[in-house]
Amino acid sequence: MEPDKLTIEQAAARIKPYLHHTPVLSCAALNHLFNADLFFKCENFQKAGAFKSRGATNAVFSLSEFELARGVATHSSGNHAAALALAASRRGAKAYIVMPENSNRIKIKAVEGYGGIIRFCKPTLKDREDTLYDIIEETGAIEIHPYNDYRIIAGQATAAMELLNEIPDLQILLSPVGGGGLLSGTALSARYFGHDIKVIACEPAGADDAFKSFYSGSFVASVNPKTIADGLLTSLGSLTYPIIKKHVDEIVTVSEESIIEAMRLTWERMKIIIEPSSAVPLAAILEKKINTGNKKTGIILSGGNVDLTALPF
Amino acid sequence: MEPDKLTIEQAAARIKPYLHHTPVLSCAALNHLFNADLFFKCENFQKAGAFKSRGATNAVFSLSEFELARGVATHSSGNHAAALALAASRRGAKAYIVMPENSNRIKIKAVEGYGGIIRFCKPTLKDREDTLYDIIEETGAIEIHPYNDYRIIAGQATAAMELLNEIPDLQILLSPVGGGGLLSGTALSARYFGHDIKVIACEPAGADDAFKSFYSGSFVASVNPKTIADGLLTSLGSLTYPIIKKHVDEIVTVSEESIIEAMRLTWERMKIIIEPSSAVPLAAILEKKINTGNKKTGIILSGGNVDLTALPF
Repeated sequence: MEPDKLTIEQAAARIKPYLHHTPVLSCAALNHLFNADLFFKCENFQKAGAFKSRGATNAVFSLSEFELARGVATHSSGNHAAALALAASRRGAKAYIVMPENSNRIKIKAVEGYGGIIRFCKPTLKDREDTLYDIIEETGAIEIHPYNDYRIIAGQATAAMELLNEIPDLQILLSPVGGGGLLSGTALSARYFGHDIKVIACEPAGADDAFKSFYSGSFVASVNPKTIADGLLTSLGSLTYPIIKKHVDEIVTVSEESIIEAMRLTWERMKIIIEPSSAVPLAAILEKKINTGNKKTGIILSGGNVDLTALPF
Repeated sequence: MEPDKLTIEQAAARIKPYLHHTPVLSCAALNHLFNADLFFKCENFQKAGAFKSRGATNAVFSLSEFELARGVATHSSGNHAAALALAASRRGAKAYIVMPENSNRIKIKAVEGYGGIIRFCKPTLKDREDTLYDIIEETGAIEIHPYNDYRIIAGQATAAMELLNEIPDLQILLSPVGGGGLLSGTALSARYFGHDIKVIACEPAGADDAFKSFYSGSFVASVNPKTIADGLLTSLGSLTYPIIKKHVDEIVTVSEESIIEAMRLTWERMKIIIEPSSAVPLAAILEKKINTGNKKTGIILSGGNVDLTALPF
């Protein structure tokens, strides 16, 4: 059953000792430029550089010593991998991470830095899953899925919960969408902790499976997605999709050019590093896909892990 | 006479309505990497992207309506230009800015954005000064020097004052040094608001005039400086040099490679944008020129204005 209010509050209490209560920033220059009133929840400053630490930490710290004894495992090319490795290390547990052999070198370094045990695979979903099942069979490790897991969803929901505790009168809340862990958590928190908020998901046009799933009413998989927003390539999950259908008001898509421009604007004006996936909501404002008017608008900046030697500027 | 404690407190009160009280950040990853306890005062988040707004705002808001009627003027290729233009615009006054014709396009855009009236000149100190004096003669504008002015020094001092109010038991305080406005203000605030703090200035080896002036005991000009830290090219001033001699404990120099590495580390680990000049103190820690031991160490991050299309990574 989808996480209720108490479950999210319990997740927040569980992860609190290990994670940052990230700041909410606003920027006069961007507000002026877009004639808006924007509040950015800075998960780029979160441990391991992304909101993924919330879900991974909640999942790992929900396990008993007995369950954890054989470690945890996942397949991920990105921030969930680092977040899970870090969370496991905080409990002295092993984290087995299946990564495609073409993964970003920065992300590989991060997983290694947190003590994750990497096994490389071919960059297909089938090979990722096969390799993961091999590991689980060999080791008895417990799988922690990047998003299709209620403990993960409840953890990711704590970002929007914190934002709403700080700015209770938000009227619009924007989140990027990939697998839907952050989005479904954000939508649940908007219902539990907000007052009549519109939740709008923002997705790259080159990876618009959530958009299609949402408006067609039946699940559409992500096939050959192409976007610089490398955190948003995956399909929705069997647990995230129903929550999104039920609690999200709208999904809009944006171009690659807008994502890059929104990312550049954030770096230049706010002086903070965000990764392309984080720039997708601001890109939607830039494209006038969302009319924020004079409504207080929250944006979840999902992460800040970028390869500085491969920037799109 | 060098600004006293009350003068700096008055400057803080004067500029408060117009500027940010910037955050003090710490970073577990950097503390771990350097086995240190670092507190970063984030002037990269300041209005116009640098601490320069403090001095410029203090100077402009110290003037009477009568004095301000003919505008203010300065020559600057960098952050002081934008800061002065912004401060003047807040009082509806004109700001005449002399900029070398080879100035960074981002800095030119910033000055224009704040309504500054730019006059370009050849990139020599003589031509900058000649052009400035022409403007002053034509317009009657009041010169606001980038650093050799007690109102500017008192304004810059408010950054360290805020840092010390927040972390009162700092034992070491690091600042970059160019013309010495930030450094002399920082050293004064360390004396007035700190308790037995060591003030250490950090300078690029390729622009080590302050280092030479400090240790030879007599003023050495900056001749053909070469460094990526483009905020630190100028010589000390007749007002800043005596304060530095009296109140600074040490000056250390660092290589270009270390500056770039420290900048990269700050971007990657702290997820914030700083300009090369801001990275000079961390570069000194990286080079082990400063032994912070387990002492609480403050670092003034001077600014965050960089051309994202011309990064050194």
